[in-house]
This record gives sequence, C-alpha cells and structure tokens, in this order.
Amino acid sequence: MDSPLRIGLAGLGTVGASLARLLSTRAQTYALRAGRPIEVVAVSARDRSRDRGVDISAMAWFDDPVELASKAEIDLFVELVGGAEGAALASVKAALNRGIPVVTANKALLAHHGVELAKLAQRKGATIFFEAAAAGGIPIIKTMREALRGNAVNRVYGILNGTCNYMLTRMEAEGIAFEDCLRDAQRLGYAEADPTFDIGGFDAAHKLALLTSLAFGCEIDLDSIFIEGISAVTNADIEAAAELGYRIKLLAVAQRTDSGIEQRVHPTMIPAHSALAQVNGVTNAVAVDTDLLGSILLVGPGAGGDATASAVLSDVIDMARDIRLPTFAVEAKQLVPYRRARMRAHEGGYYIRLSVLDRVGAFASIARRMAENDISLESIVQRKRNDGDASDTAPVILITHETTEAAVKKALDAVSKDGHLKEAPRMIRIEALD
Amino acid sequence: MDSPLRIGLAGLGTVGASLARLLSTRAQTYALRAGRPIEVVAVSARDRSRDRGVDISAMAWFDDPVELASKAEIDLFVELVGGAEGAALASVKAALNRGIPVVTANKALLAHHGVELAKLAQRKGATIFFEAAAAGGIPIIKTMREALRGNAVNRVYGILNGTCNYMLTRMEAEGIAFEDCLRDAQRLGYAEADPTFDIGGFDAAHKLALLTSLAFGCEIDLDSIFIEGISAVTNADIEAAAELGYRIKLLAVAQRTDSGIEQRVHPTMIPAHSALAQVNGVTNAVAVDTDLLGSILLVGPGAGGDATASAVLSDVIDMARDIRLPTFAVEAKQLVPYRRARMRAHEGGYYIRLSVLDRVGAFASIARRMAENDISLESIVQRKRNDGDASDTAPVILITHETTEAAVKKALDAVSKDGHLKEAPRMIRIEALD
Repeated sequence: MDSPLRIGLAGLGTVGASLARLLSTRAQTYALRAGRPIEVVAVSARDRSRDRGVDISAMAWFDDPVELASKAEIDLFVELVGGAEGAALASVKAALNRGIPVVTANKALLAHHGVELAKLAQRKGATIFFEAAAAGGIPIIKTMREALRGNAVNRVYGILNGTCNYMLTRMEAEGIAFEDCLRDAQRLGYAEADPTFDIGGFDAAHKLALLTSLAFGCEIDLDSIFIEGISAVTNADIEAAAELGYRIKLLAVAQRTDSGIEQRVHPTMIPAHSALAQVNGVTNAVAVDTDLLGSILLVGPGAGGDATASAVLSDVIDMARDIRLPTFAVEAKQLVPYRRARMRAHEGGYYIRLSVLDRVGAFASIARRMAENDISLESIVQRKRNDGDASDTAPVILITHETTEAAVKKALDAVSKDGHLKEAPRMIRIEALD
Repeated sequence: MDSPLRIGLAGLGTVGASLARLLSTRAQTYALRAGRPIEVVAVSARDRSRDRGVDISAMAWFDDPVELASKAEIDLFVELVGGAEGAALASVKAALNRGIPVVTANKALLAHHGVELAKLAQRKGATIFFEAAAAGGIPIIKTMREALRGNAVNRVYGILNGTCNYMLTRMEAEGIAFEDCLRDAQRLGYAEADPTFDIGGFDAAHKLALLTSLAFGCEIDLDSIFIEGISAVTNADIEAAAELGYRIKLLAVAQRTDSGIEQRVHPTMIPAHSALAQVNGVTNAVAVDTDLLGSILLVGPGAGGDATASAVLSDVIDMARDIRLPTFAVEAKQLVPYRRARMRAHEGGYYIRLSVLDRVGAFASIARRMAENDISLESIVQRKRNDGDASDTAPVILITHETTEAAVKKALDAVSKDGHLKEAPRMIRIEALD
C-alpha cells in the first residue's frame, strides 16, 4: 500500500469535527477505498481544548490556518474555515502556492474568488475540489465535472436552499403565513437568526454561480445573477398555484439562451406532478438538461454535518487516489468570459395576481394592456371572495403563455397606472420542465 | 498538451457509431475537457462498408475484436460488442492481458464475469470502467464508486428497466391490459420481439448485480437474485394500488439485513407521492440509502444511443485524464464473498388480493390464518362488485403491516387450502421509502 495521504485540516466546526472523527473511526475502510491510509496530521481551529469527540493530540496544532497551510508537512489542505475573505482565502492561497491541492466546502470563497484561485492552482500544478460547496450531499459537482462532460448543457436548475424549501413546503402543507413559518424555522434551527442570506436567495445564488461555470465552461459571475427571495410569497399565491396544478419553489436556474446565459434565483411555479415538485422540506435537488442525455435529476440532502462531511470525504478520497482535475472542469485559462443574458429578455410563462377594484371596465382594460404587449393568456381565474368579505376588490389570476419579462413588466406598469388595482401586482415566473 | 489517447473501438452499432461520431465532431471540446486529444485509431465491426455517418477510413480495421484488442496500438479498449461470452469476453481479456484499460457498456459480461475480469485487470495494472452498463445515462456507477465512498450503504434500489416502467406507466394511465400494452411497446420499439429479458426482470437483475457489488464491497452474485417479472401485474392490482395511495413499479433492490444482503427484483408498491413514483415511461431512477448522507435519488434516461454514448464518454474522458480506480471501487481481491439473505426472511409490508367465494365464514377464516402467522393488517378493503357482476366472488384486498415473506407465504398457503378462494392469491411487496 502506498504512503499515507497527509491532511491539514483547518476548521473544526460541525463538518470539520465530523470529518476528523470519520477519518479516525473508519480509517481501515477508507484506506481500502482510497488504496492508501488517510491521516489528519495537522489541524487548526479557534479553541484547542474543546472536546469534539476526536483525539487531536497526535496532530500538529496551528492557531492560524494560514500558518498551517504554509508550513505543515501535508499532501492536502482541507479548508472548512468559511467566509469569502480572511483566513479562508489566505490559507487556500498559501496551500496552492506550495502546489498543495485543496478541498473546500466554501461556496462564498469560490463564488467570489474561484477563477483567480483556479488560475493559481493551475500555475502551481494543484487543484481545488469542492463537492460540498453546492447542494451538500448531492454529488452534483462530480456529476457535472466528470459524468456529463460528453454533453453540451442547456440548463442547470434546482432547489439549492433547504431553508426556503422547508418554509415553502410548510406554508403549502399547513397554510401558515410566511412570518410565522420563519419564526418556527428559526426555533427549529432550519433558519438563522438573520435569515437574509437564505430567504433572500443569496445562498442559492452562490451555489448557482459555481454550477454555471461547470455547465457552460465560463468564468464565475456572482454579481450578474438576478436574485429574488421568497419573502413576498403569500399563502394566496401558494393556493392559487395548487388550484392551477403548480407548486412554488425557490429555483436557481442557469440557462443558455440566444443572447447569452441567464442566471436567476426566484420563486418559481413548477408543475405539481413533476418529480422536482415532490422535493419537500430541507431536501435539495438539481436537474441538468443536456443535448445527449436529455435530463437528469439528482435529489438529496442539501446540508447537515454528516452529509457535508460525506461530500468532503468524496473529494478527499479522490485526492488520495491521485485524481487531479481542473477546478472548474477545464483549465482555468480556458474558461470563457461569462456572457450575461439580460433578465428583461427572459422568456417563459408568468403567473400574475391582481387585486382588481370592482369597477365596470376594469377587466377589459387589463385584457387590453396584455394584448398591447403581445401577451396571450393561457388561463384567467377570477377567484371568488369569501362570504362576508366586504372588500371592494376581486382577486384575478392570469397565467400567460410564453412571453418576455420585458413585456410582462411593461403590461403590469400600464395596468398599475390605469388605476384599477388596489395593490401592486404580483408576478411569479413559471419554469417549463420536460 | 499531452499525447492523444488512442482508442480501439469494438462494435459499431447504435452506441458505437454515436460514440465514434461524437469523438470526431466534438474533438476540440473533448480535448479541452480531457486535457488531451482523444482519437479512435482502430475499429472492429461486422460490416466494414456500412455507412454509419462517420469516416472510419483513417482507422485501422479489424474483422475480429479479439485481434484488435490483442494487437492494435491503443491506450484504451472500448467494448461495445455485447454478450456475456464470445468475442466480448475474449476481447476484454485480451486487452486486460496487455495491461490496457477497458470501457464497456456490457452488463451481461460484468454480471457473469465481473469479478474474474476485475482480478485480471488488477494483476495487469489495468481497470474496467462501465458507467453505461447500469441505468444508461444516470451516473450511478461514478456516484457509488466515488461520490458515496465515505458512506456505508444500507440499500440501493431503483427502476432499472425502461420497458417495464413504460408498460406499467401506460397500464396505469390508460387502463390497458398487459398483453395489449406489450404489443404496443413492441410496435413502438420499447420492447423486443422476445420481451422476456426485460419484462421477466432479468435485465434489471443484471444491473442490480453490479450495483450490489459497488454498494457492499462484495463479489457479484447474479444467480442469487430473487427475480419476479411484471407479467402477472393486472389492471386490478394497479387500480387497487392507486386507491390505497400506491403505485406499482418494477423495483430492483439490494439491501443489507441482519442475515446478509437481499437482492431482489419484483413488482413493488411504493407511495404514490414519493419522488420515485413520479418516474414514468422509459425513464430510470436509482436511490441509495446511506448512513452519512441519508438518501439520494438519481433520475434520468436508462437507454438510448446518445444517452449510453454519454455514459461511455464519461468513462473515456476519465481514462484520458488518467483516472484509474479499481473496477468495483476496491481492489478485486478485497471484495468479500456475497452473503445471501434468503427471500423467506425478507421483511416488509405486503399487498394481498384475494378472490373470496361468497360464503359465510370465509372472511373470518382468512383473518384467522393471518393472525395465526402473526400478520397484522393495516387495511382491509372489500371492493364492491360492479352492478350486474354475477360472479360469486368478492375481491378482498389486504395490506399488511411489516411481516416476513415466510409468514405471508404460509398464511396464503393455508388460505388457499381452506378452499375459500376462487383464484390463486395475488401478492405484491410494498417497499418502505423514507
């Protein structure tokens, strides 16, 4: 058997501690699968004395992850520090500068500095593996980097944020309002005290940025992603979606179009009978549409210490097996610049919910505005008010045939200005699935 | 850029011709993804002159695939000849004997000779990659061999045969009888003239044999697989399943139990709202239950020239990238013997359909036989006969709580002998999904 793979591990939080424990308790199994022993020989964390259920006394201790990455006698640097800048960035750079490959679960680091780091890795003969950085336990990175490379990808999309999916699932199943659902999610540990990163769609966008690069062989461009979170999704929308045969999910989508590549994260209506619509709770899912294969869908846990450790272990054992692939599937200098497709050019169906003031001619006026913008309607539902509802408005729901975002915006602006609405119109994009 | 990967390709049927065409028309893209050019330098097929949409004039021609594998100047042998014995087996052995790695789509070859070939490969410093051999375009081999190797697998199961799934889907959606559905499937090219290999469950069993080895690190044992095809599934079963909230799929399941590893292929009732139940038509799906990750599910095309070529290309580019892994994830000599769990010890819920003769005491007698065998019932449905149905029997459907196969067999034998049934009892296993 070959010499051991010596790991320097920075970060002993939930995932790091789980990883260290597994590498110790399953050492024999992993050695069989890796063809050689795997040993954590150096660690860095905030607190040396904390009990993490794993004996670190035989490992070299570093207070500073950058020093570990710079000086420890290691074959692989595993970065589980977190954060797009600071110690995470500096330590990864330090390892790569020594030609040491890196395994990381850090989506923010790669979404912000991935191309720069991939170029550094390439110059130094190293690489970065990051299976745990997108969709947790789902092997989407390996699938896109390796399994699909005979294909041209047309679209990659999925449910990439467990918090949002948990909330939308409960809102639908139990009819709970968004704010109540969020409080519950926070109490149960499915949402952070400051939930903005998750429910604002930013977490999903970070993951999407990485998938876009793998799908289209382009540079990462986080800033170009259109992002709309789930906080405006109401129970009325969810109910209307159900009546029309749809479910609402926060989807992250990257799609090749004639004018470039769309990257977007937003609440999306998808057919209720699709496999993706059955993905409930904190579970994640990613689908890829390609030219040879058609479509594949991967469903699994998006987060959790053990699930994330499983993804890190996949990378670690790849490294032990001397599997070396370019960070983003092709050599970093071969990545083409990201060519952005404007959101206003997005084509698709739209769900529109209007609170129409109960006046003669209001509906005719709305229909005219749609027609003026070449929007044809697939269905129109005037929902009944509840008995005893004394309001002077009628909720009207429109489902459009395929049209453009620009046309919908223009039509809704005109409808708003016409003064027939009590509230601002509500719009949710519909995603066509195969 | 490194020197080209020189491929010897045996078999120019649908998949082989598609592969040769893609390697030619996408040469530049694949070279970028593989880090080096990939060239088919030698081919073998039945008919040299047939037009396959690809120019083979610059490739060395061999009438005999074994001669190609034995003599051609190649770095990789791609076997697309097919069949468990004969030229496929001989040519793969010839290549491995020269230390040349093999890529194959041949499930029968590996299900029958996989361990022997893996051992030969290991001795000669070669390997066999076979992504296309199970579930076509779904990257389940790579996922199990690489992505999940931090995990212990508890169960792998899925819809591995497109023909059966197509038929069950249509029988459910349209209420067509099995025989009519089969004729249609044959006419449309979804079933062979002799459909036994597919509808008898043998195709799924071959694929399962490979997944079992990857899941549990054991030797392949095709002959131990319990196989029951779909030809006894009736529309009455499908309707009853739907009423009870289930769907019927042909599942292939390998599962760790206290007494060994179960391998079974049979019609299975699964919850209608599960993601797996939404997998319709010729689509395949594989789920893996593990200890770290929990469960993941992969859904995609199970067959087709381009989808299979996509899987072969994944292996070919791995080979070009010098990715070398043991055929069945661990070194062949480290595979443990397969330890069979008897089917009679299988534990699960059961659907039982009885044609009960309309006599006083019949039902009490059936209930007693169940109780005698410690079978508790989750639901009992006595279905109404159609108006005008003059038969003297009442269809009774039982759903059992978890019990053993032995208990169910014994109870049904007793019920049959008691003489209350008009027809032999019908039983379908229920699979618990997470």
